[in-house]
Amino acid sequence: MRVLVLLTDFGTRDPYASLMRAAARRIKPDIVIEDLTHGIPRYCITCGAYVLYTSYEWFPEDSIYVSVVDPGVGSSRRGILVKVKERYFIGPDNGILWPVIEENLEDSEAFALDEEKVSPWEVSSTFHGRDVFAPAAARIARGEDPSSFAYRIELGSLRTLSLTYSRDIEGGKCFKVIYIDSFGDVVLSSRGEEAEKVLSMKKAKVFLEGREIGEAEATRTFSLVSRGEIALYVNSSGFLELSVNMGDFAEKFGVEIGDEICLKQ
Amino acid sequence: MRVLVLLTDFGTRDPYASLMRAAARRIKPDIVIEDLTHGIPRYCITCGAYVLYTSYEWFPEDSIYVSVVDPGVGSSRRGILVKVKERYFIGPDNGILWPVIEENLEDSEAFALDEEKVSPWEVSSTFHGRDVFAPAAARIARGEDPSSFAYRIELGSLRTLSLTYSRDIEGGKCFKVIYIDSFGDVVLSSRGEEAEKVLSMKKAKVFLEGREIGEAEATRTFSLVSRGEIALYVNSSGFLELSVNMGDFAEKFGVEIGDEICLKQ
Amino acid sequence: MRVLVLLTDFGTRDPYASLMRAAARRIKPDIVIEDLTHGIPRYCITCGAYVLYTSYEWFPEDSIYVSVVDPGVGSSRRGILVKVKERYFIGPDNGILWPVIEENLEDSEAFALDEEKVSPWEVSSTFHGRDVFAPAAARIARGEDPSSFAYRIELGSLRTLSLTYSRDIEGGKCFKVIYIDSFGDVVLSSRGEEAEKVLSMKKAKVFLEGREIGEAEATRTFSLVSRGEIALYVNSSGFLELSVNMGDFAEKFGVEIGDEICLKQ
Repeated sequence: MRVLVLLTDFGTRDPYASLMRAAARRIKPDIVIEDLTHGIPRYCITCGAYVLYTSYEWFPEDSIYVSVVDPGVGSSRRGILVKVKERYFIGPDNGILWPVIEENLEDSEAFALDEEKVSPWEVSSTFHGRDVFAPAAARIARGEDPSSFAYRIELGSLRTLSLTYSRDIEGGKCFKVIYIDSFGDVVLSSRGEEAEKVLSMKKAKVFLEGREIGEAEATRTFSLVSRGEIALYVNSSGFLELSVNMGDFAEKFGVEIGDEICLKQ
Repeated sequence: MRVLVLLTDFGTRDPYASLMRAAARRIKPDIVIEDLTHGIPRYCITCGAYVLYTSYEWFPEDSIYVSVVDPGVGSSRRGILVKVKERYFIGPDNGILWPVIEENLEDSEAFALDEEKVSPWEVSSTFHGRDVFAPAAARIARGEDPSSFAYRIELGSLRTLSLTYSRDIEGGKCFKVIYIDSFGDVVLSSRGEEAEKVLSMKKAKVFLEGREIGEAEATRTFSLVSRGEIALYVNSSGFLELSVNMGDFAEKFGVEIGDEICLKQ
Repeated sequence: MRVLVLLTDFGTRDPYASLMRAAARRIKPDIVIEDLTHGIPRYCITCGAYVLYTSYEWFPEDSIYVSVVDPGVGSSRRGILVKVKERYFIGPDNGILWPVIEENLEDSEAFALDEEKVSPWEVSSTFHGRDVFAPAAARIARGEDPSSFAYRIELGSLRTLSLTYSRDIEGGKCFKVIYIDSFGDVVLSSRGEEAEKVLSMKKAKVFLEGREIGEAEATRTFSLVSRGEIALYVNSSGFLELSVNMGDFAEKFGVEIGDEICLKQ
């Protein structure tokens, strides 16, 4: 049975996440649901894209993912469904799904949701997670074909979004902050070979929005630098990350999503 | 199988919500549990009543609901169980269940819980969620009759609570703030025809506790007003709501639960 | 079927808790998982030990518990698995499991996890919850013997940690703060007979780190003292606790984990 994986910025204080689950169960009562997170920073589409992209492969190969970070709800932005191999990704067409699709262009098919057809009840203007996206997921889970509530669109028409970015400077490289976790660890827009190459610096001066804030030690994990020192490493999702051992890097230095951080020898 | 729906102000930092689930499973190991929310603002009985009232119909028609916002735990307030058609509502007798009951007076039967009979273990003085309410729910779920651990009481003896309130003023109406969600959206004590009529104003000056704080635009959804502007609309639960597009209305203006907000042409 | 109970300081904003669940399900897809809490205060091993010790008996007698408060992840600290009667406890060897073991020394067997053997995928340096502890739990859940991925160690080699501490002073006793819940209630390092004896004082002056902060009334529950007054009682887990009725004791007086609180007649 397909698992429904939920990712939103709704938080868990309000009933919204539970009502999405309830809506899916109205359509498929025995659906298995996994809350990946409802704690994406508010309105941060890049954060949602990062968490989805780095997490989705941990779930079964026929999972259905509903990703809702959706400041444009109720406006003209489309709701989309993208089949990637045997997985289905559902959410607003604002880039949140793009990094997953981009890596699987050959194996992806995109659909736009027909709001009127997808929902068995009246669609509100403010809560498409409950009224459009969860119902679409539940219909897939019970075996319906996307064509019964959505129509094919071109992959090329989708909003794009990139999780990687770098800029060369003398003696170093600059990146963007794409995610900050609740330990205050700061994820940079770099992975793979580039990230490994940065680590080979051993030590790097760290500049936040042009201001030098300290020196980072390249390491395998934060606990290997001294308490209070800055560690630079590849995190458990393969991205470059900055951390203060036993501290909160983001709070200490006032880092925000989208800031530029430069690392220099 | 009946679903057990939980609503509390316990938060999820502490083990309390999990221990309620564990207590229910001690009595009925295979019980299906849905956490509607554990994030009701502390001690805010009106908030709990609002979330329960606007959410309960999304769950199956034979669900069991345990609602615990209970500053009076351990004092003389009663624990109650109310059967409403095929649903069961359990919680302290402090008004939290009342809006649901009020709409279904003809179809409701009320019981007071006998603490000594309901719990298979010793009842603590501070945690009736675990020791009284969850066990009562699990007993219903496994088919016991309320009479085995509770006794009939008059509906008229229950504490009441109202989610609607309005006061006419020259050129407008005043309401109470009954809920603030974690986006900072502010729910007012008005729904149905009255709410629709307020929306017909198109534009309204907003007064918080007598002080003018801005002008709201009546709309279908927050994303249809400009960034930073105030939107006034009927929310996805049918209540009147104020929001700042891409902002936090409650924080921006210092709104608190129970404040009076007036809307004038 | 064995239940997997999770306790961490990961929070629920990030995907970490969900990825632990996903990792366990990769190995045993139908495993039943209960999130005891992911809200242990960051890096507070004593807090984790307190919550585990006071909660574990509420779950079935053959449950598997993964407890991760692990500032030393990736360093040389061992990962351990301890069988206590029919229960299994898994986590870092930093004392978090010790209070449970100490009460069951005769019935406990300890193992050190072999990281390379336990994980079917490459072990990251920063996320042993996903890569080591959850897989170990899932292997136990599907019936594997600990010896297939761990080796016996002496109980005497484990890190210890104590939840009880008291110091006699003239006319009273001093304790440590071992936990603060999200209501601001403050748990002290005392239980059982000693706690009952303290309650027999009826009224006690409260000293925080040597400074007198008020007078507490010994009672059965916080709601029995006047609003805003300090209540002293045995909490629902059997430990001595201080609370302000309808208030937040910890915030009001600036209490932190590890502080000394003295109670004097």
